[in-house]
Amino acid sequence: MAQKPSIPKGTRDFSPEEVAKRNYIFNTIQTEFKGFGFQPIETPSFENSSTLMGKYGDEGDRLIFKILNSGDFLKKADKDALANSDSLKLTSSISEKALRYDLTVPFARYVVQHQNEIEFPFKRYQIQPVWRADRPQKGRFREFFQCDADVVGSNSLWQEVEFVQLYDAVFNKLGLEGVTIKINNRKVLSGFAEVIGEQDKLIDFTVALDKLDKIGEEGVKKEMREKGISEEALNKIQPIFNLNGNFAEKIEGLKTILEGSETGQKGIEELQFIQNAIEEMPLSVAKLDLDVTLARGLNYYTGAIFEVAAPENVKMGSIGGGGRYDDLTGIFGLKDMSGIGISFGLDRIYLVLEELGLFPATVTENTKVLFINFGEKEALYAMKAVKRLREENIIAELYPDSAKMGKQMKYADKRSIPYVVLAGEEEINDKKFTLKHMKSGEQSNLDFNGLSGALK
Amino acid sequence: MAQKPSIPKGTRDFSPEEVAKRNYIFNTIQTEFKGFGFQPIETPSFENSSTLMGKYGDEGDRLIFKILNSGDFLKKADKDALANSDSLKLTSSISEKALRYDLTVPFARYVVQHQNEIEFPFKRYQIQPVWRADRPQKGRFREFFQCDADVVGSNSLWQEVEFVQLYDAVFNKLGLEGVTIKINNRKVLSGFAEVIGEQDKLIDFTVALDKLDKIGEEGVKKEMREKGISEEALNKIQPIFNLNGNFAEKIEGLKTILEGSETGQKGIEELQFIQNAIEEMPLSVAKLDLDVTLARGLNYYTGAIFEVAAPENVKMGSIGGGGRYDDLTGIFGLKDMSGIGISFGLDRIYLVLEELGLFPATVTENTKVLFINFGEKEALYAMKAVKRLREENIIAELYPDSAKMGKQMKYADKRSIPYVVLAGEEEINDKKFTLKHMKSGEQSNLDFNGLSGALK
Repeated sequence: MAQKPSIPKGTRDFSPEEVAKRNYIFNTIQTEFKGFGFQPIETPSFENSSTLMGKYGDEGDRLIFKILNSGDFLKKADKDALANSDSLKLTSSISEKALRYDLTVPFARYVVQHQNEIEFPFKRYQIQPVWRADRPQKGRFREFFQCDADVVGSNSLWQEVEFVQLYDAVFNKLGLEGVTIKINNRKVLSGFAEVIGEQDKLIDFTVALDKLDKIGEEGVKKEMREKGISEEALNKIQPIFNLNGNFAEKIEGLKTILEGSETGQKGIEELQFIQNAIEEMPLSVAKLDLDVTLARGLNYYTGAIFEVAAPENVKMGSIGGGGRYDDLTGIFGLKDMSGIGISFGLDRIYLVLEELGLFPATVTENTKVLFINFGEKEALYAMKAVKRLREENIIAELYPDSAKMGKQMKYADKRSIPYVVLAGEEEINDKKFTLKHMKSGEQSNLDFNGLSGALK
Repeated sequence: MAQKPSIPKGTRDFSPEEVAKRNYIFNTIQTEFKGFGFQPIETPSFENSSTLMGKYGDEGDRLIFKILNSGDFLKKADKDALANSDSLKLTSSISEKALRYDLTVPFARYVVQHQNEIEFPFKRYQIQPVWRADRPQKGRFREFFQCDADVVGSNSLWQEVEFVQLYDAVFNKLGLEGVTIKINNRKVLSGFAEVIGEQDKLIDFTVALDKLDKIGEEGVKKEMREKGISEEALNKIQPIFNLNGNFAEKIEGLKTILEGSETGQKGIEELQFIQNAIEEMPLSVAKLDLDVTLARGLNYYTGAIFEVAAPENVKMGSIGGGGRYDDLTGIFGLKDMSGIGISFGLDRIYLVLEELGLFPATVTENTKVLFINFGEKEALYAMKAVKRLREENIIAELYPDSAKMGKQMKYADKRSIPYVVLAGEEEINDKKFTLKHMKSGEQSNLDFNGLSGALK
């Protein structure tokens, strides 16, 4: 019996329409990446396990897909681990390679490995799939694309400015208005912890603060208390909850809150620089907003932190994010290489564009005209025209079999091909083509130039 | 100690220049695929092992990369296999997924799984990486891209014609002249075996014949004798070795040789149909040639067999191939679905274009102009111009740091950026820009429109 085919959970097949729409987003992002001077690199789908393991925390290690060694892999297997049925311990002895988990660690590896071929600052982009053994759920997949742009080798704040502009340029090209680029700075968060005297609880503090829009002020305070943050400290940070107004007003509020923290003041300066530059060069469709509760990637971000929110009328998590990290390549032995990068969330951007009807109709257009096949002689006449049309960049096809007319018309209809050409003996004798518009049923009798003109 | 980074053997990092060149080939192929009415699909990088195993022979099964189950995989491990240290037997109990080995089997799986959403004949293309645990060697990699176009759901010979035209169109666009599209037909090979009375030795016979250009007539005969093919049979096939001349002349020769075989005559008819059509619609740069020794993919090809040879002045194996298979989807339970497909060998085409210097210079062009950074105020002035240039699709960058002039100029030089802009206090006051051509050293003082015009 033939098996009933299926695909692994958390993975997807993409139909022609889906591929076309995805490619539209990829191409738009890629064009802007290039336009901003980023250069593409690609890295292998699997890396040596030692390159990936230990870079994403224990949870990450667990979610990395491991590739079984080829051949008689048990020969080198860890005998103790086998005896103790210790899967975790056994893994490294029967698997030396693992699938890419993100694009950042392979990028760091690339930079270190190829440092002598690279001119720094190095602006690279990379659009490739990554794999995670996460429990699949709505909108979370085991294989998905990341679209990253990073610069390494400079700590200039102009790069932060440029990434804000890059987000804006992409969303502008996609016709997506109302996006909010939220920005924060790790130094501001450190400043908070400093002024309340809880430096050692920075992560607990910021993780709680990050939940403000989900669990509200009281919820945040409750979580902070549970983490052992004192009432005195909570009183001191009260002004954080009262920060509002526009970017400049929030900055003023921050200045007061962070008065006692040098680090905090540095963070404010950086935010101000970016805000000033963007004011001088206004964004097209996106809005830049300061969100001091934003606390993603605190394990590695050291300066700016970005997160992009979809337009308010669409219910969707963040559609992008990024930040500055001061020591990306240190893990591979290259020190003092400051970097900053952002990422676009392809799958969510897709859903947003779909929901708002923003995919241009041209994206999924393909074959423009189908030539009906009336038999060998007619088919040759048709194929000659098909060939010439293709040379003029008009997508044309001949129905391969001289099937019943109805079947061929139905095929054109189902595939949303807008025109068919009927060319039988009469047309051949007159060197003409009968062009029929599928929707209106209108027909016209044309020579080749007329046909080609009508289809352009 | 930080580890010295490396990548798994048989895999590759691609530099910006390499990615650009590869994308040039991908885009050219893709444009023609689309132009011929093929639609893109994508399938997951890993499939259920049951989808892939047993489809490529024992050797193929061995070369498929298996993914280790996540979590405590030993729990479900085959105890007997463990006790006997039987890696092969153990595999299926600790690995349920495997990396794609080619694009054909996943395509067949896709067609069967989505048959109710597809209009047949279904013309699809697919450009994705595949993975094989082959011993890496020069030009053979463990991860490489395949570029496939297939049609399923019709056995019309117009499709054979179209694929010949498709090859020609792609090589024409790539500027690659002198390619030979070799064609044969499985039915002709069956006919040979039939007329010499060795039907049961078809594979041995054709495998030997396929080596004619490598080991010569005597070598082929020697191998055939070793495989038990009789002297009488060898005498009967002598005319095969004497076949020469152009396509039509070879066809005439074949007609005599295959006089007694109905299957063989059918094969000749098919070849003639294709040849006639191509004569009516001449190819642009490629040559269609009949090669009766061509015997690739005999396990699945049932009609036409294609192989594309690089121009004679380049030493390179085949740069493409394909053929017709009458039962692609049968393995997944969908019978009577004739298909035909071709593939482009990206890596080899890359090497051929490189060797012949056929990559257009524009392919690797990127940033057009670098603005020198003289400090914060000047940088803002520069960034405003950079932003406007980008909006006019001119790739412009600001050097992020106000480093020493020499360092910035060296950066432009190393990155082959053709122009730099110098804009200091004087230029700012005059609302001008000093544009310098890196190679000639020529400078001109321009307003923004002049600058933008000069860079277009």
